[in-house]
Amino acid sequence: MEPIDPTTARAWLATALAEARAGLAEGGVPVGAALYDADGTLLGRGRNRRVQDGDPSLHAETAAFRAAGRRRSYRGTTMVTTLSPCWYCSGLVRQFGISRVVIGEAATFHGGHDWLAEHGVEVVLLDDPECTATMREFVARHPRLWNEDIGD
Amino acid sequence: MEPIDPTTARAWLATALAEARAGLAEGGVPVGAALYDADGTLLGRGRNRRVQDGDPSLHAETAAFRAAGRRRSYRGTTMVTTLSPCWYCSGLVRQFGISRVVIGEAATFHGGHDWLAEHGVEVVLLDDPECTATMREFVARHPRLWNEDIGD
Repeated sequence: MEPIDPTTARAWLATALAEARAGLAEGGVPVGAALYDADGTLLGRGRNRRVQDGDPSLHAETAAFRAAGRRRSYRGTTMVTTLSPCWYCSGLVRQFGISRVVIGEAATFHGGHDWLAEHGVEVVLLDDPECTATMREFVARHPRLWNEDIGD
Repeated sequence: MEPIDPTTARAWLATALAEARAGLAEGGVPVGAALYDADGTLLGRGRNRRVQDGDPSLHAETAAFRAAGRRRSYRGTTMVTTLSPCWYCSGLVRQFGISRVVIGEAATFHGGHDWLAEHGVEVVLLDDPECTATMREFVARHPRLWNEDIGD
């Protein structure tokens, strides 16, 4: 797979960040994600829905994956997420053979993305200051909710 | 945590197997799961819903986890599943600190349960012939659907 160009990575991250911000406005955990096909088609987008739906199974990545519906293959797809994927979401990426993960930031939470890289997933970490600021503010204001969301 | 006694493990597996069979009757992927609390309370049960809901994010374990609703902690809980958990479901168990996994069989599919054991999860593999027979028949009849469900 060709490396992703920085402009595309930033544009895709903007989709995920818009989801995260919508989640924040709803009182939810502000993590957003989007699944893109190799040709740039947006297959699905979503955000953490623990608070909104009372559903702990919908992290941002699983919400985006769900929104994309059934597919025969995920080869060539990219999961874009505002935050380093937790083990649950990293497991999703590995199991379904999603080829690439673009991550907004891993400063507030470091999930399983090193493990993914070891198993052949292309990992692009953007160190985006807006993603980091959004999470920092949220974690400081709602530490219990954040810990609940990551089983901590 | 005290080791689970075999009678309890079998009784809990029966709940998961009933879910798997209900899924088979619906034309779905016949994997079932249930989440139990340390005191034996059934917190949630579910089955793979790829076919029924067109939702690839609901494996049996994630369906049972979702049905249990929001919780502060999963310490002491047991995830019972008819089949070895894939990476996605193994990631769920690890991230949320589910203490034990009881597995019906790992002969038709070997997922991430060794990795879970390495990371402190108690793994109980029952080698249940009914679970194996159900999966064998399903995989033989619907190989494409099964491969889709595990991203193969």
